[in-house]
Amino acid sequence: MLLGQVVGTVVSTKKTESLIGLKLLLVQNLDITGKLAKGYHVAADSVQAGLGDVVIYSTGSAARQTDITTERPVDAVVMGIVDTWDVNGKTAFNKSEPLEVADV
Amino acid sequence: MLLGQVVGTVVSTKKTESLIGLKLLLVQNLDITGKLAKGYHVAADSVQAGLGDVVIYSTGSAARQTDITTERPVDAVVMGIVDTWDVNGKTAFNKSEPLEVADV
Amino acid sequence: MLLGQVVGTVVSTKKTESLIGLKLLLVQNLDITGKLAKGYHVAADSVQAGLGDVVIYSTGSAARQTDITTERPVDAVVMGIVDTWDVNGKTAFNKSEPLEVADV
Amino acid sequence: MLLGQVVGTVVSTKKTESLIGLKLLLVQNLDITGKLAKGYHVAADSVQAGLGDVVIYSTGSAARQTDITTERPVDAVVMGIVDTWDVNGKTAFNKSEPLEVADV
Amino acid sequence: MLLGQVVGTVVSTKKTESLIGLKLLLVQNLDITGKLAKGYHVAADSVQAGLGDVVIYSTGSAARQTDITTERPVDAVVMGIVDTWDVNGKTAFNKSEPLEVADV
Repeated sequence: MLLGQVVGTVVSTKKTESLIGLKLLLVQNLDITGKLAKGYHVAADSVQAGLGDVVIYSTGSAARQTDITTERPVDAVVMGIVDTWDVNGKTAFNKSEPLEVADV
Repeated sequence: MLLGQVVGTVVSTKKTESLIGLKLLLVQNLDITGKLAKGYHVAADSVQAGLGDVVIYSTGSAARQTDITTERPVDAVVMGIVDTWDVNGKTAFNKSEPLEVADV
Repeated sequence: MLLGQVVGTVVSTKKTESLIGLKLLLVQNLDITGKLAKGYHVAADSVQAGLGDVVIYSTGSAARQTDITTERPVDAVVMGIVDTWDVNGKTAFNKSEPLEVADV
Repeated sequence: MLLGQVVGTVVSTKKTESLIGLKLLLVQNLDITGKLAKGYHVAADSVQAGLGDVVIYSTGSAARQTDITTERPVDAVVMGIVDTWDVNGKTAFNKSEPLEVADV
Repeated sequence: MLLGQVVGTVVSTKKTESLIGLKLLLVQNLDITGKLAKGYHVAADSVQAGLGDVVIYSTGSAARQTDITTERPVDAVVMGIVDTWDVNGKTAFNKSEPLEVADV
């Protein structure tokens, strides 16, 4: 899994049937210090994450292992909203001090 | 899933049987601001996307989870034509202002 | 799928049983303009591709979805010989003007 | 598999049901000389690894092939704590001389 | 599949049960000219490869398609010892002139 921040949503009306009903989040990667990193995924949302939330997401076939993504053609899913993580015993991110969403 | 733009099509007549009947799109990656990014995929088309369309596509085993790609040897599928996406609440792409297709 | 050029073959006599009988092609990546790009794969051949042929190939579990690769430990397969592809309506590659094989 | 060092843990209370009960480790990649390398994964823990441990971990569908990760949406799992590895017959890492955890 | 050289072995005694009995090789990537390239994998050994051997290996779910790796949490397997490969009709590697193992 990787750490990312929800920075937006993607809307598609003309799509393959099996995608209908999924919310598609735009997730920008974070490095382990909590800074924005290269790369993003459009990920299905399984936890009602919102703009700015720091999340963990899975890619590949793992992304089909949630109730809402089974047998759907998704290769990325947001699976959890992160409360905290630490690096070497020090807090690297705490939800009580949310990350701002960078303009791009 | 990733965001991309359909920039062309690939024609192959001598191919493995299970590929017959699939339209193969050349999809150039986009970054989250809607600019062309490194990397491309040749992806099966499940939504009748056309030249210049901005799309979402899946890679890996997820690409076999549409009606037209089941049990076929494809590792990428275009699953939706994107209407809009936003970053930090601002529209980053809107289909009403299509991206030009860059010459290469 | 990616575009590549067959630049050679790999011979292995001491190998896992399930590989026996597969031809292993050395496939160099191409970018969408038809130039050699970074990266290569050793791919099983499902279409009798030859030296210099421009091909499409799949990676990952998709590579096991051809008749000759089912249940084999291959993560890449050449699935088609490319006739042409176009970018923005202009021909980027045409088999009638083959790419030379670069020396390395 | 890759070599990595456990540098922290990730806590998520609002998560997809199938993640409940898994410990999520923050694993920083190591190169073959034992130096920190680019890239990290949040990986499920199947061996009760602790802070600073040097580990091997798998990614992709392989990550669901342990008792604790079956049918869970995880794409990375720590599978072993490394005792030693050697490169060209010389010890490159020995658990008896643990790596410090770098601050970030 | 990729080409690599066996440069060492990894020893782990505290590991997930399904890994027991597998030999774990440290495989450094090679480019198509036979030079050491970036990247490595810890791969299960299915062909009794030894130090210095040039090998082909598979990653991802393909790595579970050998007798010794079925249903094990491995994402890389060495499947063959390479005798030769050629590029543009010229021998790029021949086992009769083995590659030295670089110190690191």
